[in-house]
Amino acid sequence: MIKAVLFDLDDTLYPSSKLAEAARKNAIRAMIEAGLDVDMTEEELYEELEEIVEEFGSNHPRHFDLLLKRIGVDPDPKLVAAAVVAYHDTKFAYLKPYPDVIPTLMKLREMGLKLGVVTSGLAVKQWEKLIRLGLHHFFHAVVISEEIGVEKPNPRIFTEAAERLGVEPSECVFVGDRLDHDIRGANRVGMVTVRVRKGKYSDMEPENEEDVPDFEISRLGELLDVIRKLLRESSD
Amino acid sequence: MIKAVLFDLDDTLYPSSKLAEAARKNAIRAMIEAGLDVDMTEEELYEELEEIVEEFGSNHPRHFDLLLKRIGVDPDPKLVAAAVVAYHDTKFAYLKPYPDVIPTLMKLREMGLKLGVVTSGLAVKQWEKLIRLGLHHFFHAVVISEEIGVEKPNPRIFTEAAERLGVEPSECVFVGDRLDHDIRGANRVGMVTVRVRKGKYSDMEPENEEDVPDFEISRLGELLDVIRKLLRESSD
Repeated sequence: MIKAVLFDLDDTLYPSSKLAEAARKNAIRAMIEAGLDVDMTEEELYEELEEIVEEFGSNHPRHFDLLLKRIGVDPDPKLVAAAVVAYHDTKFAYLKPYPDVIPTLMKLREMGLKLGVVTSGLAVKQWEKLIRLGLHHFFHAVVISEEIGVEKPNPRIFTEAAERLGVEPSECVFVGDRLDHDIRGANRVGMVTVRVRKGKYSDMEPENEEDVPDFEISRLGELLDVIRKLLRESSD
Repeated sequence: MIKAVLFDLDDTLYPSSKLAEAARKNAIRAMIEAGLDVDMTEEELYEELEEIVEEFGSNHPRHFDLLLKRIGVDPDPKLVAAAVVAYHDTKFAYLKPYPDVIPTLMKLREMGLKLGVVTSGLAVKQWEKLIRLGLHHFFHAVVISEEIGVEKPNPRIFTEAAERLGVEPSECVFVGDRLDHDIRGANRVGMVTVRVRKGKYSDMEPENEEDVPDFEISRLGELLDVIRKLLRESSD
């Protein structure tokens, strides 16, 4: 019997990859407008920045300082500030849930299900996203990797979420975009897994058995059909 | 002969103290709405937060975490995120120059004067303010304490600004709100000093000779009369 639905956050509930791409591209443009003078195209600068994010992680606090270093430009707080302003303004303007997220979460709550978020990242930063997205009131539990010191696909972050909701893992549906984090981890603890094909990993295919989801959807609204089907099956 | 006008930033070109107060009060309210449950009034929480800013400095990155610690509440990233969101949204909404700042700066440039900013703080943060205020195109030089490793009222930050503009300190007018930082330092290097009575130090009186400004104004627009008088005197 399904009693709870758990969600990944980034790219599952809002378009995180697109937002980051738009914000970084605007940051590059702002640096050029503020006087960045190098023999590189916008596109080349963007690729360099993407490499930095890849190498140093998305939560490194000084991506734009690193970019200047990497392309041989002296430290320049004006250029960095121009990038930071453009990045944040773009981010806040675009930080909206996918259009079907709020109606779907409301219906799930009306069906009497417990809702939770299981997300990787810095606790304050992930909470800030939930608040800015207007989603923080929808969930009965929010589990963030930094808070418990365990990352996906480690089973412990998934069982922790079930525990906080007072349900068994087998009574949970897990919804996420990443096969190697969300689906693998949730499969390992025996949750029903739903892959949503969104974000930069949407073209990936499972490379092994434990990354195969029970269901696949292309937008969150389709989740309701999956849940109804599961509830029907268990009442049969 | 006056050739340049240098400005302090915070509370001289925009209402920094008022903005910080509004942002912190909204942050406290947001923490309470997000579930902060203590036997303290909003006002008491605000006073505690002000003490933290006083003790740890305004650039400490974790004021709200310190607040929770101080009042005996377990770390809670949701409460901190609620505070951060409210703080930033208030800050960005209020971050506007005083209404007479832009017309005054334009007239000064039309008069052929060089303009500069001499400000204390973190370089990227101060540049971010200038950009968000829409003031970054008005100045020929911006000198920030973090960049040169020297704080007001150390004379070197004032002579550095004059040098960058290619003028002598005696050819500069310095405009600022703080007697002990702006006026003292600019007096020491022989600049003409103008105190603008704005912000949280507006009621202070000079305690010694070197803190006495040459002129005093209550809003930035009045600076034009001071400059015109100085230019007339030197051409007599």
